[in-house]
Amino acid sequence: MSQTTARRVRLAAIELFATRGFHGTGIRDLAEAAGLSSATLYHYMGTKEDLLVSIMRASLDRLVAAARQVTADVPDPLGRVTNLVALHVYTHAEQQLETRVVDGEIRALSPQRRPGIIALRDEYEACWQTAIDDGCDRGLLRPSSRSVARLALLEMCSGISRWYSPTGPFTLDELAERYIEMSLGLLGAPGPAAKPDLGPVRAIVAANWPD
Amino acid sequence: MSQTTARRVRLAAIELFATRGFHGTGIRDLAEAAGLSSATLYHYMGTKEDLLVSIMRASLDRLVAAARQVTADVPDPLGRVTNLVALHVYTHAEQQLETRVVDGEIRALSPQRRPGIIALRDEYEACWQTAIDDGCDRGLLRPSSRSVARLALLEMCSGISRWYSPTGPFTLDELAERYIEMSLGLLGAPGPAAKPDLGPVRAIVAANWPD
Repeated sequence: MSQTTARRVRLAAIELFATRGFHGTGIRDLAEAAGLSSATLYHYMGTKEDLLVSIMRASLDRLVAAARQVTADVPDPLGRVTNLVALHVYTHAEQQLETRVVDGEIRALSPQRRPGIIALRDEYEACWQTAIDDGCDRGLLRPSSRSVARLALLEMCSGISRWYSPTGPFTLDELAERYIEMSLGLLGAPGPAAKPDLGPVRAIVAANWPD
Repeated sequence: MSQTTARRVRLAAIELFATRGFHGTGIRDLAEAAGLSSATLYHYMGTKEDLLVSIMRASLDRLVAAARQVTADVPDPLGRVTNLVALHVYTHAEQQLETRVVDGEIRALSPQRRPGIIALRDEYEACWQTAIDDGCDRGLLRPSSRSVARLALLEMCSGISRWYSPTGPFTLDELAERYIEMSLGLLGAPGPAAKPDLGPVRAIVAANWPD
């Protein structure tokens, strides 16, 4: 199967999984959307779950790599939270369908495949937790519960993939700025933050999601 | 169909829609889970979409009613936000599957049925927006965008239905307190809030969700 065909299958699968759900998508729907026979699709991509796992793994691998890059060499924990929020906002708006599948269909994975994906998601969330914990340890952040704060933050930011529209009233940078402000407030950071420089995060997103 | 049977069908449908998604649930799965034939199920409950719409409508009707009750006679907008957050936390933890279906399956509705459900959800969200706007107008809250703040708050609080476990480290009251604290911080409320009295919201939840 050529790279182009593999890509077409992935895009068709992301679209169908995001709009109809994994369980609501048949292998024949996938084959039809990708312009292949079911047998060809199966031969190259394996089962429907193989395809879902491959989509999730690719997405989370990139997200983990990007999370490490946006927090590396940023000693200030508030700066790290700022960059993680911006990364999450950009990816959940720009890769709206893919992130919706990753966030929404973990429940659909079989017990055999789930732990591998959960482990990747945990790696990503650990970047957030480390930044939050560090901010708390230095007295810069003060949520009553550090783990509940992480969950709340991530759900708040992931929500963007459920409602974002490119025709909305805000540019993506404006949206990221608003989410950074709300996130720091949620975490009990003191006073209004300085206007963040989103350029480095933008560059990391562009490098990790080139297509 | 008896009240008991109708209730059994609803509970089976909520469970299946929440775990497999609307599109992933067949009418035969529903009939089997409820111990009925497909024909009997169809005769009394109509199509699968009729059942989804009925579940969503009942859930949102209760939520709208409760939102009005927890904000009535509360002149302080911060008190109204506090009560709405507590209401949302309690219902999304206690009615975890039902709220997950309402929040997650609106995308599955046909163009004919969607506007009616969206209108109900908008009524509920309007209660939140009014409280936020009032807090901003009085200088008590200062998010950079009032509407983005509403979306962020609701996604943050709805996330509870996706991760909450009754065996977790916090009681529901403790969780509600943490969410109230984070919500007021997110909205830019000044300083730490006084410990909220959650009794009235608890009573309204118990009255509206008696079973």
